[in-house]
Amino acid sequence: MSRYFDEEMESMPKRRLLSLQLERLKSLVSRAYSSSRFYRALYDEGGVTPDDIKCIDDIQNLPFLDEQALRDAYPNGLALAPRRQFREVAGCLNGGAPALVFLTRKDLRYRAQLCARNLVAAGLREGDAVLNLMPSGMGFQGHGYDAGAYAAGMMVVPRPACTLEEQVKLLPDIGMAGVCGSPVALQNLTQMLLEQLGPRDKALRLRLAMACDGEWPDGLYDETREELENRLGVPVVDAVAMTRPLLHGLGVECEEKNGLHVWADAFLVECVHPDTKEWVEEGYVGELVWTWLAADGSAVIRYRSGDLATLTWEETCPCGRTHPKISHILGRASESFTVAGKLVLAVALEKELNRIPDLTGEYRVLIERPRTIDRVTLFVEVRDSLALQDKERTRRIRMQVSDTAKAVVGIRVQVELVPPGALPRVNTRAERIEDGRRILRLP
Amino acid sequence: MSRYFDEEMESMPKRRLLSLQLERLKSLVSRAYSSSRFYRALYDEGGVTPDDIKCIDDIQNLPFLDEQALRDAYPNGLALAPRRQFREVAGCLNGGAPALVFLTRKDLRYRAQLCARNLVAAGLREGDAVLNLMPSGMGFQGHGYDAGAYAAGMMVVPRPACTLEEQVKLLPDIGMAGVCGSPVALQNLTQMLLEQLGPRDKALRLRLAMACDGEWPDGLYDETREELENRLGVPVVDAVAMTRPLLHGLGVECEEKNGLHVWADAFLVECVHPDTKEWVEEGYVGELVWTWLAADGSAVIRYRSGDLATLTWEETCPCGRTHPKISHILGRASESFTVAGKLVLAVALEKELNRIPDLTGEYRVLIERPRTIDRVTLFVEVRDSLALQDKERTRRIRMQVSDTAKAVVGIRVQVELVPPGALPRVNTRAERIEDGRRILRLP
Repeated sequence: MSRYFDEEMESMPKRRLLSLQLERLKSLVSRAYSSSRFYRALYDEGGVTPDDIKCIDDIQNLPFLDEQALRDAYPNGLALAPRRQFREVAGCLNGGAPALVFLTRKDLRYRAQLCARNLVAAGLREGDAVLNLMPSGMGFQGHGYDAGAYAAGMMVVPRPACTLEEQVKLLPDIGMAGVCGSPVALQNLTQMLLEQLGPRDKALRLRLAMACDGEWPDGLYDETREELENRLGVPVVDAVAMTRPLLHGLGVECEEKNGLHVWADAFLVECVHPDTKEWVEEGYVGELVWTWLAADGSAVIRYRSGDLATLTWEETCPCGRTHPKISHILGRASESFTVAGKLVLAVALEKELNRIPDLTGEYRVLIERPRTIDRVTLFVEVRDSLALQDKERTRRIRMQVSDTAKAVVGIRVQVELVPPGALPRVNTRAERIEDGRRILRLP
Repeated sequence: MSRYFDEEMESMPKRRLLSLQLERLKSLVSRAYSSSRFYRALYDEGGVTPDDIKCIDDIQNLPFLDEQALRDAYPNGLALAPRRQFREVAGCLNGGAPALVFLTRKDLRYRAQLCARNLVAAGLREGDAVLNLMPSGMGFQGHGYDAGAYAAGMMVVPRPACTLEEQVKLLPDIGMAGVCGSPVALQNLTQMLLEQLGPRDKALRLRLAMACDGEWPDGLYDETREELENRLGVPVVDAVAMTRPLLHGLGVECEEKNGLHVWADAFLVECVHPDTKEWVEEGYVGELVWTWLAADGSAVIRYRSGDLATLTWEETCPCGRTHPKISHILGRASESFTVAGKLVLAVALEKELNRIPDLTGEYRVLIERPRTIDRVTLFVEVRDSLALQDKERTRRIRMQVSDTAKAVVGIRVQVELVPPGALPRVNTRAERIEDGRRILRLP
């Protein structure tokens, strides 16, 4: 049985893929410009026309879809077709700007094909049964994977309408080869399987789990996945996740397990520096920017996802697929900062600081540029306030923090030790970073 | 635009429908007998063979699928095809026996067609947007209605993965013609729409709501529906609901609003007396027994649903549809009893007792047959225990209860007034009925 769902498309030479991308990009931008008032205004303001797209690199001249643009486009600005042609609306609020993306019958079919590719690339085959734990609904599209499984000739075991706990009793009797779900859903399932059936019940016939559509605890990605694999007793494959405003089936990790393929016939993914907004070199961390090339009903062109990852495009992956690869999502752009040209993820710093037993884990980063050079001050809370009265202990802790921070940030930072509880508690990682330079950058 | 989704099938003359039913029944029973060990054992034990089905009425010779049969069939006894042909499993635990029903690609397609018929018969049309609030998953099949809407050329607004409250903000901007959901989901939606948008916001463009896949408070069916219609400002159409083990799209109420059409090409529904298990006359209350005639992957033949309703088959409904009609579900068979040949629903009795202000609403029914005539004793709690010491009050209450009960039960019953709290509290209506005769009927 083939290890591809669509061999021709999945292993198309890079040059042909690129020309397919260019052709689709041109057509998409033309359609958006001619049929959406929102895009026409956006591009007129940006001083670009569809004719300016002559090669893939020219996409860099197009304005981004940022939060403000989504707000401007709402509700129907992204639509490209008459309303009667739509078969589904995928909407989301995202806490920020709401967005509505409309899908035609053609889009539904493409979505099913892409989800089918993901399932097969992950290692599932025709005739297999797949437990689909992904939520279906606005902003989530577990039903995309249902359709993908149907298309790939698999049997869908739908997510329980009853409690998972009840359904687990049925699972050994159904016998599934694979399960898809968010990392948290997989963790819950694993727990229940182990409790109810004992470790690695043979009756399950499970061969792999696919983690999609959910957040990994980013700083502990490898550890969490390894633990899950050990407990579940099967490989856990990672799928490209983005809840909005695109379809599912963006891509998946292949058996090489060194990156996630993005289906380049359907999506063009860029990796940009979140501050300069310019392309970063292959393999460097940047913000993923998505363009939905294969879209029929709605135009999503240069959507800034806020997700940080790396992007590489080898000639051919040993798995045989030619589509570019991204890393798993390393963090959020809002939770990063740039110092002396280097992008630093707060989560990376946090992970290292957490290894120092003298600290509470609470920290704050202040970045300034008093003259022409970046200056970083790192505030950390010590666990025992008495340490601050002991010169020797203070010196030792400060040195340890300073070395740790230099390894992550790239330059020597100013360390300020403060007593436990001195830093106000915050809810998001983004609030731990104060970038004093940003004020100076406003026009 | 046509008011049928499939005019030929929906308005097929009764005679042709009956012969289609017979043909499908014969083929289904043959397949079940030849390919399922479970059915072969069941039919061998019942002393019937597929050749015994010569006319529709012969279905009465086939054994029922009751709880015990489902238990015997679990997990794969209902399956009719090799596992590789299955595309979905619909399973449920039902508190009682678990059941697994497997669907092939053909079944998925038929399900979509049936759901499309329901949507169109309810009054929706090609190009309309439909908010689908029904849960998707094992035992529930909101995704059946998604597929139905796609097939009918409608746009699906999927049920929110975010909270409904958040999604309601998007609804006026999407503009929906219809919404499907359980009565409770429709009530919640109505509440939120009224709170957030004010009464009958024009922007919604809502034309109707379809109540499916959920329980109406049975005693107050008409009142609840009317209240919902008034608050929502649009008609509420009722769909045939049964969570298991059949597909969705069993049938729907047409615009005549005097019964729910059951799609007779796909399902054969019988109405039997829950005790004698014989067919009741048209228009009389009985237990619905379902046979899934159009099934490809699994056989569900004579499934006792436990639901009480009436069944009628007019020559042609004024709506143009020729398929038989059932009433909405009036109660559960386990919550009924037969006295002097008449089927009495506990809910009907309860509704009347609740109108008597002197009672707490707590009651118990005891049926006995000391000789050859049924005797019914009705225990009711009075709200004020002092009433029991007042002969005149006691007489008056007793008479009121007796008259009320006679109107519902059909015969004069023995009334026992007891002080408040004297009857032990129970969780189900079934526990309020004690049928002393049943003991005598055991072999």
